Amino acid sequence: MKSITVQQPEKLVIEERPVPHPQKGEVRIRVASAGICGSDVHIYRGHNPFARYPRVIGHEFFGHIDAVGEDVETSRIGERVVGDPVVSCGHCYPCLVGRPNVCAELQVIGVHRDGGFSEYVTLPAKNAHVVPDSIPDNEATMVEPFTIAANICAQMKPGPLDTALVYGAGPMGLTSIQALRGVYGVKEIIVVDRIDERLEMAKANGADRVINNTNLDLKTELEKLAIRPTLIIDAACHPSILPEAIGLASPAARIGIMGFSSEPCVLSQQAITSKELTIYSSRLNSNRFPLVISWMAERKIQPEKLITHQYPYIQVIEAMELFEKDQKQCCKVLLKF
Amino acid sequence: MKSITVQQPEKLVIEERPVPHPQKGEVRIRVASAGICGSDVHIYRGHNPFARYPRVIGHEFFGHIDAVGEDVETSRIGERVVGDPVVSCGHCYPCLVGRPNVCAELQVIGVHRDGGFSEYVTLPAKNAHVVPDSIPDNEATMVEPFTIAANICAQMKPGPLDTALVYGAGPMGLTSIQALRGVYGVKEIIVVDRIDERLEMAKANGADRVINNTNLDLKTELEKLAIRPTLIIDAACHPSILPEAIGLASPAARIGIMGFSSEPCVLSQQAITSKELTIYSSRLNSNRFPLVISWMAERKIQPEKLITHQYPYIQVIEAMELFEKDQKQCCKVLLKF
Repeated sequence: MKSITVQQPEKLVIEERPVPHPQKGEVRIRVASAGICGSDVHIYRGHNPFARYPRVIGHEFFGHIDAVGEDVETSRIGERVVGDPVVSCGHCYPCLVGRPNVCAELQVIGVHRDGGFSEYVTLPAKNAHVVPDSIPDNEATMVEPFTIAANICAQMKPGPLDTALVYGAGPMGLTSIQALRGVYGVKEIIVVDRIDERLEMAKANGADRVINNTNLDLKTELEKLAIRPTLIIDAACHPSILPEAIGLASPAARIGIMGFSSEPCVLSQQAITSKELTIYSSRLNSNRFPLVISWMAERKIQPEKLITHQYPYIQVIEAMELFEKDQKQCCKVLLKF
Repeated sequence: MKSITVQQPEKLVIEERPVPHPQKGEVRIRVASAGICGSDVHIYRGHNPFARYPRVIGHEFFGHIDAVGEDVETSRIGERVVGDPVVSCGHCYPCLVGRPNVCAELQVIGVHRDGGFSEYVTLPAKNAHVVPDSIPDNEATMVEPFTIAANICAQMKPGPLDTALVYGAGPMGLTSIQALRGVYGVKEIIVVDRIDERLEMAKANGADRVINNTNLDLKTELEKLAIRPTLIIDAACHPSILPEAIGLASPAARIGIMGFSSEPCVLSQQAITSKELTIYSSRLNSNRFPLVISWMAERKIQPEKLITHQYPYIQVIEAMELFEKDQKQCCKVLLKF
């Protein structure tokens, strides 16, 4: 089979590999479609601290089950499925409290073990989630990116009284905006980014108001509008955002971060406690695939809006470079197998 | 009536004031007993940023309703009550989401308006909570300090799978320990402080294990014991604790802070997000009086264990200085009216 492999940082090849056999408790997926994520690019560029090389990348993938291992019903063969990249031990503290995404022995498909940018991929049977026929292939490929939004929202519990501020109108921001609008029905969504084209996408995806803060002070702008956000999602992930968000937040607000920066972030506890803020963090997803599939089946979200480009998998380098460089026009890029 | 008034920082007097008349919607309490809190001392010393002078201090008080204002049932006269110091507007965002403790127009009795170190105090009728006869006067006076623990615990939702680490074995730490043990039934409670006598109190109040970190590195000690706390409460409130707690925490842990330091606190977002930690903050209490009264009625907590001293109110200065200086022997000091 053909597999897209990062042999070492900056060296990505399409190599011939043997088709894997599903192990006990696993299924094998014949991949039809896969999405490129920033973290794939980070592995390619050597910026992901968790990756080990060589690695078949890709953790957003859709296809059909074509083989099963021991202890898996053969009736599963033929299922249309998406793969949850979170492989967990099931018995550590995070697993016991429903947080397999931070399992003590976490293995992320496409990061710690070989991923879905491949004609075939094997994974635990419970990680392969059936997609109803009403959800087209391309949309199904978008389940994983929406689980990122679902995971942070499930923690933050947005509601109709919320005025939401979303930092960043890239894929994480846009999926969050769609969820806040279509699933949680928040009162108002304000989006801040530094690229006008992305802010246009934010509007198309449900933002009520957008602010380009390249040359504006966000605090001043929000004060002019008398807006005090009650729910803030940092989908831009710069370490300077959290302290700013703490300052902007309404009393009793929730702030959600998804960034992995190791740069120092300087806060004032007085600013947090005097308003009794809660700071959530979110990594990957904890069993949110069924939830997102139900959102899609009920048409609460519009994943097709985010898909700007599609390529045959052999053009993966062109696709990844486009994703990396053209932030104005490009949102989600799919590879077809 | 006699009222204990801080006329200006460092100037505390017992002055004669007119007995107040309860306004519309208010009741008047004939105070029997009141507790000294660190924040009373802070107002006395001029270190509370919210206080305005002159101020009758005291926000932990118990007594009997002896008069009611317009729109309050006269049948309330005679009730044994404790006063919730949080006076809120009822219509701002925090109030609408059940967080009156960070109301946009917050008035704290004993801080923003005159308090309970007085023979009489008036407050909104809904802030006066009836105490069952089974709860003695002194214990009733302890309801407010326990609402601080109740408030942070209600947010953090401790449970039987939790290994709790509590920083600080002062009144906030000890009430938290009692709640974690008697109400929430966590698996294990570790307490860290720098005073051995306080750590002895921590044991007497339910700690399984105590660590004096004056000359020990807490991280090394916990590693030796193979302990990774899943729930950390900072009841010592030094700004250096949060970064340390983030490093010690188990993946999927919750950390709760109550400190008001304005000193910079330097964090790594990677350390937070890679473990998907949640950071809660807690200030005062949001409608936790009925909950704590039920804990006392059901004997889930032992408030009497915390009361180390009692004084007639005329000895208030002696009482406050003892509270301030004798951290080894003194925990909760009550004033009797």
